[in-house]
Amino acid sequence: MAQAIDLMLRGARQIVTATGSQPRAGAGLAAIEIHENAALAIDDGCILEIGPVAPMEKRYQARHTLDAEGGVIVPGFVDAHTHPVFATTREVEFEQRTQGATYTEISQAGGGILSSVRGVRGASKEELVARLLLHLDRFLDMGTTTVEAKSGYGLSLEDELKCLEVIALAGAQHPVELVPTFLGAHEFPPEFRDRRGAYVDHLVQDMLPAVAERGLAEYCDIFTEAHVFGLDDSRRILERARELGFGLRLHVDQLTPLGGAELAAELGAASADHLEFVSDHGIESLGAAGVVPVLCPLVPLYLRVEQEVPGRRMVSAGLAPALATDFNPGSCYTQSMPEVMTWAALRLRFSAAECLTASTLNAACSLGRGASVGSLEPGKRANVLILDQPDYRHLCYEFGRNPVRVVIAGGKVVRDARRS
Amino acid sequence: MAQAIDLMLRGARQIVTATGSQPRAGAGLAAIEIHENAALAIDDGCILEIGPVAPMEKRYQARHTLDAEGGVIVPGFVDAHTHPVFATTREVEFEQRTQGATYTEISQAGGGILSSVRGVRGASKEELVARLLLHLDRFLDMGTTTVEAKSGYGLSLEDELKCLEVIALAGAQHPVELVPTFLGAHEFPPEFRDRRGAYVDHLVQDMLPAVAERGLAEYCDIFTEAHVFGLDDSRRILERARELGFGLRLHVDQLTPLGGAELAAELGAASADHLEFVSDHGIESLGAAGVVPVLCPLVPLYLRVEQEVPGRRMVSAGLAPALATDFNPGSCYTQSMPEVMTWAALRLRFSAAECLTASTLNAACSLGRGASVGSLEPGKRANVLILDQPDYRHLCYEFGRNPVRVVIAGGKVVRDARRS
Repeated sequence: MAQAIDLMLRGARQIVTATGSQPRAGAGLAAIEIHENAALAIDDGCILEIGPVAPMEKRYQARHTLDAEGGVIVPGFVDAHTHPVFATTREVEFEQRTQGATYTEISQAGGGILSSVRGVRGASKEELVARLLLHLDRFLDMGTTTVEAKSGYGLSLEDELKCLEVIALAGAQHPVELVPTFLGAHEFPPEFRDRRGAYVDHLVQDMLPAVAERGLAEYCDIFTEAHVFGLDDSRRILERARELGFGLRLHVDQLTPLGGAELAAELGAASADHLEFVSDHGIESLGAAGVVPVLCPLVPLYLRVEQEVPGRRMVSAGLAPALATDFNPGSCYTQSMPEVMTWAALRLRFSAAECLTASTLNAACSLGRGASVGSLEPGKRANVLILDQPDYRHLCYEFGRNPVRVVIAGGKVVRDARRS
Repeated sequence: MAQAIDLMLRGARQIVTATGSQPRAGAGLAAIEIHENAALAIDDGCILEIGPVAPMEKRYQARHTLDAEGGVIVPGFVDAHTHPVFATTREVEFEQRTQGATYTEISQAGGGILSSVRGVRGASKEELVARLLLHLDRFLDMGTTTVEAKSGYGLSLEDELKCLEVIALAGAQHPVELVPTFLGAHEFPPEFRDRRGAYVDHLVQDMLPAVAERGLAEYCDIFTEAHVFGLDDSRRILERARELGFGLRLHVDQLTPLGGAELAAELGAASADHLEFVSDHGIESLGAAGVVPVLCPLVPLYLRVEQEVPGRRMVSAGLAPALATDFNPGSCYTQSMPEVMTWAALRLRFSAAECLTASTLNAACSLGRGASVGSLEPGKRANVLILDQPDYRHLCYEFGRNPVRVVIAGGKVVRDARRS
């Protein structure tokens, strides 16, 4: 007799997925599975099986069936780097920058990270939760079911805790799974501008223990760059974070080749992010230490920085990159992983298969969730997308449109925009 | 007593529009109107008035009212350059190119324009109409209500007529207004590869008169480039087209500085398109002749050509540029004008106001429709969008998401994706 299950997906031209629970490195990045004329069975929130339609329909009796209408089925996207807790947008600064204003001019005119800090400090927790929920709706619309979410626009103990509580509150009431990261070391707050050492002390002695005690973050991140947190300060903060049980993520080598990748490797970080200016030695170090490089190819384009992240060199060196939007109000105002994939193809020369693995499995692994999400395999959480594209390579080939028609998160249909 | 009207839009934070029926040039490109706390009245398919809410509500009794929910109202977008009639997509070639294949390698592997020609020749009129209607649905989803549509993948009398008939048939049954352009001089067809002069003769003697006789195209376009139609062939074809009553559009100076802009000016063309390699003299000539430069900033990015169109130089020289997607299966697979605007801001340094004018009024003017569409003014066709963004500058600032919630074409609500 057929086994009763919750949901069967059929009618897809392709079911496409990376496989495994470990980050896929080097040539393995492109080694995806493509199932044609297959069905996908879901039960109890998890993926049960992918296989040829006819035997699947004999084996299972589904309470609900969804028709993919000749489209493509892929895993829910995982966005491994975002700053989604903010109160105000920065379209004025964007326009100033496109019109030629420099970073210094924008800062002097009240722009930059500190303008977001003013906004967050002035906003109530309820207001920030409401805004974050709107962002999460849009992530979900565009097929992103797991989102790394950083604090970092509070920069005081009180305001950083507020941001992390906002992430916890919004995550608890939304289908998008949030992975919280403490980024108190995003910038020096105005009140510590002339005593930077005291802010580092405050981070190490007060803020990190308070966040750890409340269990509000899985990861600790830092903006390691010459004009912000240098290598020594970064090491001190991150070593303390590691002692307190945080996983480590680092913004490194984004604007200058400071050697942040080497530091990430030395500390056994989960990820090293940005990396436009990483050295060959930095790439080697990341490879040897098994750190996932999280690449944000939209950011240099959005900031009009000509330097491109050496994505192909990383793959050749055997690294296992992830892709991310870096969604934030200053340097990248998009939440679309398909948009990231198109530009990763165009600028980093990633194939569509590489883009897909980097946007799902490898991103999940960088967040410690390789065993639960990031691929379509029996036992993994059923985070599944139906795209209205005839081939998975359209994820890169087409851009500027949301191809996601159906979003399933934890086995539940949470979006259905099919016309029929 | 209040006047009965069809539709009233209210609740917008901003109603933003260029004004007039002539292309806006130089500093005028940025001179938009921004109405706050205003309503927009529509009757009999046309815009009746924009004004402060209270008096408008006294003056008019609307049969239907739409709430813009704090968003922005702008004119329907006008896409002044597209190749939407094709049978097959070219995602394989896209991937080959991102992986480093050259144009020649792609052509030898069966890619390029001629692969689209094979597809169109092998497709029935019904199949092409069905595909075009799908594309038109997507244009409309993304707020484009007027689309210039070229033939050019037929390259035989029979197949070019088929493509133009497809445009007429699809246009007659869809809310998107299509402006048909004959592009028989897109490339040399395989059967004329070794006798190019004979194809030019065929265009002049047979194809152009046949298209004119059937009234199937308003414009004649040509790919003027050293390896395709040189200046002399271009002049001969376009002069014949002008005699037959066609307006003229030209693909010029896209890959090399051939002097196509000067030719467009000499012939009094409606538009000169692409222009990445235009000379200063070419820019001057376009300005003196009042030719609208139609800029497609996504194309060099999609083709990984480093040369950028000198958009700011054109504005400084007093030109009146339009923006366009160049939607086609080879060199730009997107239909999104907001995506074009973001990259025009980032790469051409256009302000959001300039992007909006170039994507509406100036594009309409380049298509001979400046009097009927392209702005929100009394008497113009009511092609109106409601965006879910709080400020019109978000059209450039945000990307990768469709901000269009409601589309009104000719006074009718043809899309409504508001959540509430």
